[in-house]
Amino acid sequence: MSTSSRKPLHLNAFLMSTGHHEASWRLPESNPHANTDVEHYRELARIAERGTFDSVFFADSPALFGDVGRRPSGSLEPTVLLTAIAAATERIGLIATASTTYNDPYNLARRFASVDHVSGGRAGWNVVTTASVDAARNFGLEELPSHRDRYARAAEFLEVARRLWDSWDDDAALADKEGGVWADASRVHRVDHAGEYFRVQGPLNVPRSPQGHPVLVQAGSSEDGKTLASEYAEAVFTAQQTLADAQAFYADLKARVARAGRDPEAVKILPGIVPVLGATEAEARAREEQLDQLIVPEYAREQLARTLRVAPDDLPLDRELPADLPDEDEIEGAKSRYTLIVTLARRERLTVRQLIGRLGGGRGHRTFSGTPEQVADALAEWHAKGAADGFNVMPAVLPSGLSEFVDHVVPILRRRGLFRTEYTGTTLRHHYGLDRPVSSFARDHDRTHQLDLLGA
Amino acid sequence: MSTSSRKPLHLNAFLMSTGHHEASWRLPESNPHANTDVEHYRELARIAERGTFDSVFFADSPALFGDVGRRPSGSLEPTVLLTAIAAATERIGLIATASTTYNDPYNLARRFASVDHVSGGRAGWNVVTTASVDAARNFGLEELPSHRDRYARAAEFLEVARRLWDSWDDDAALADKEGGVWADASRVHRVDHAGEYFRVQGPLNVPRSPQGHPVLVQAGSSEDGKTLASEYAEAVFTAQQTLADAQAFYADLKARVARAGRDPEAVKILPGIVPVLGATEAEARAREEQLDQLIVPEYAREQLARTLRVAPDDLPLDRELPADLPDEDEIEGAKSRYTLIVTLARRERLTVRQLIGRLGGGRGHRTFSGTPEQVADALAEWHAKGAADGFNVMPAVLPSGLSEFVDHVVPILRRRGLFRTEYTGTTLRHHYGLDRPVSSFARDHDRTHQLDLLGA
Ligand SMILES: Cc1cc2nc3c(=O)[nH]c(=O)nc-3n(C[C@H](O)[C@H](O)[C@H](O)COP(=O)(O)O)c2cc1C
Ligand SMILES: Cc1cc2nc3c(=O)[nH]c(=O)nc-3n(C[C@H](O)[C@H](O)[C@H](O)COP(=O)(O)O)c2cc1C
Repeated sequence: MSTSSRKPLHLNAFLMSTGHHEASWRLPESNPHANTDVEHYRELARIAERGTFDSVFFADSPALFGDVGRRPSGSLEPTVLLTAIAAATERIGLIATASTTYNDPYNLARRFASVDHVSGGRAGWNVVTTASVDAARNFGLEELPSHRDRYARAAEFLEVARRLWDSWDDDAALADKEGGVWADASRVHRVDHAGEYFRVQGPLNVPRSPQGHPVLVQAGSSEDGKTLASEYAEAVFTAQQTLADAQAFYADLKARVARAGRDPEAVKILPGIVPVLGATEAEARAREEQLDQLIVPEYAREQLARTLRVAPDDLPLDRELPADLPDEDEIEGAKSRYTLIVTLARRERLTVRQLIGRLGGGRGHRTFSGTPEQVADALAEWHAKGAADGFNVMPAVLPSGLSEFVDHVVPILRRRGLFRTEYTGTTLRHHYGLDRPVSSFARDHDRTHQLDLLGA
Repeated sequence: MSTSSRKPLHLNAFLMSTGHHEASWRLPESNPHANTDVEHYRELARIAERGTFDSVFFADSPALFGDVGRRPSGSLEPTVLLTAIAAATERIGLIATASTTYNDPYNLARRFASVDHVSGGRAGWNVVTTASVDAARNFGLEELPSHRDRYARAAEFLEVARRLWDSWDDDAALADKEGGVWADASRVHRVDHAGEYFRVQGPLNVPRSPQGHPVLVQAGSSEDGKTLASEYAEAVFTAQQTLADAQAFYADLKARVARAGRDPEAVKILPGIVPVLGATEAEARAREEQLDQLIVPEYAREQLARTLRVAPDDLPLDRELPADLPDEDEIEGAKSRYTLIVTLARRERLTVRQLIGRLGGGRGHRTFSGTPEQVADALAEWHAKGAADGFNVMPAVLPSGLSEFVDHVVPILRRRGLFRTEYTGTTLRHHYGLDRPVSSFARDHDRTHQLDLLGA
């Protein structure tokens, strides 16, 4: 196949201990303590940088998730981990997940601005609302706040954060040694936000960062999630199983972005893909099966039962899902994930055991096993056919799955002119082709100034 | 003078942009953008490590403090900055300040545990309660919570944090690939804390860190501050102007620690010192005066007026402080700092201008100008006479003040057998001579087990 396109393709490496496949830690090659091993992650980031990936990314939740028997559990806090990685890399972007439901805007805006300073403009923030009751119970709540409430808080959180990031004009620090004036106080602004969820005075206690603010990434695909993305996101991670679904999602989100008055090009959409590579298709399939056989089905079934809100006994391993499951409307947790799992199972008429295999590999993301050429074709096709601006690459096994992708798939994408051969800039915004945001205070100022000139 | 003591002396480097003297940024040698320059801080940490310091330390407050015209303002968030420094150093301890008033225990415990993992056991946390109304207004409050309330919250915060740090037994992760069991769920504990300020379910979402938990540092010297220190602190930073005051503080705090049922040796007391070095005493004095002359007195007077809760006009530069100032009891902010300033001014009958000069150098910490021999004598004397277990070294100018201290004072302390010539361990606990804490869950378990054996 010879797909070509003038738009470059973007690649993000979604990193996770020994890999995205839940049984990856059981392979002889895997370091089962990788989840707390900073050297493991430094190595992964260096591999991704060798492959000129746009960024590396860590998911996160402020709660211990699932069964600790099942797979490496507990992880390093992502802003700390990415800062540790920044020192071992030069160019690659660094995207950390943090929850708007369980943080304060002042502290989190400060922290991401600091990562952006320390990394020379490589920070990104995956904005999530956290669909876990265990997280709520770590922060004084009995129950998960409603889905609507979490997204309303997220929107206000982002308003406040952007205002704080803008609170220092880019030229505020004069450093006038002679005159004894370090900064011009008139260029450092209070924020004076008073909203439904937050009251924040400002200014932020750190000067504006190299990128203006970190690249804002969003990963919720429910209605509320897409609305938030259309207004604030600069990149979107999403789980899509088929070309048609991915095209529909892509078209829908880009249209929403346009309706929100923004340039659709200013939001990059990256579906997840779990590539399992082999020298032949058969070899790739065999590797996938070897991994699936290492899954302990009881753990996975309990997890599935929690997500679907049924008892584990209602899910016999060799039967399809029960017919009477709740609607997405009734789910207060991760709506889009719920729907994705149910749709996948029904569409392909999977037994619980088969469904578990599919989720064990990519947790609902598209798993694709094949030769490097086949994987490159699959990516190029989605990219050419309006399903993706790039991909969230989720190796089943780490580090081997990432280095195989970099050594075998990336060169094909480069040869086809779809992917950069070297970095041409130093910031994450540059890699993704995103502009540095103009400060909202500078915009206010220009507007006032124009009105003044008009004598208004 | 030939002071000797069998107890080793500890040194912490308190780092701050271009130095602790407020006018240091105006010197030709200073980088006025050092406050956001990670390379500046990496260099400082390497210098301190060359001097085998126990640790480096950053103060912090979640608010922009004072007048941005006066000195470099705004700073990198300390856990991020210390993580960036960790990668450039091997042994030195890394102490970050964070407020218990404006953080959640779950997030902060996770973050410090992560820094401890990433640095191989070098993390410390300076626990502060934040005496600034501007901080309150960044977190939805109109006024500063009362001093008592802040300290009550701090104590409960530390209880919760310690429980979270202990929530994974050291041997919880089995990594049993053959059996398909990653961790033993019975060795990962919920916390189920329900108190006045916090309800936290747990467990923490990261395994127990190399030091068990970060070294806990405390820096408030009010009654409530000393009570908190006696129960939780493992090191205490304090500002003391005279040998007698420092001895009294030292004796008082060690007695309180003993009364709290702890070993007084398990808490190290480090008064601050701002050393200004010269080849001769006259040269050191001249350098100090050169710096003081660069202070813009208006900024400093406004700050002093805020601290003393009077109008700037009530503080004529060439008069002593007014007679009718409030009592420490009436101050809800930084009580011990308030008292220290007033006492210093009254004792030495300083004019406002002179007081500003003294505070401009060390903000209430002891400034000592002299030859390296004289500075070493001063440190050795306090150490020998029961006023200090070590010192919080606050160079007036950075990096030069730190490298001069390392090159000229440290060798003298080493020759006298007072200070290490090389690191003998890899963790901050090791450097300070502090034990790794036994997990409170393990203690509970042993107690239950003993009761079982007794048939109770
Ligand atoms: C690639 C990807 C990564 C995600 N990472 C996280 C994460 O780290 N933490 C989290 O709470 N949710 C994460 N999510 C889930 C969503 O952000 C969102 O919180 C969840 O789906 C609920 O939102 P929704 O109902 O809009 O889908 C991720 C989703 C995707 C597609
Ligand atoms: C060396 C030293 C460093 C300090 N650093 C901080 C700091 O970074 N942030 C802060 O809020 N308070 C800091 N403090 C102040 C105290 O921690 C405390 O918050 C304040 O003095 C109020 O407590 P007190 O009334 O018990 O003295 C520091 C104090 C000392 C002596």
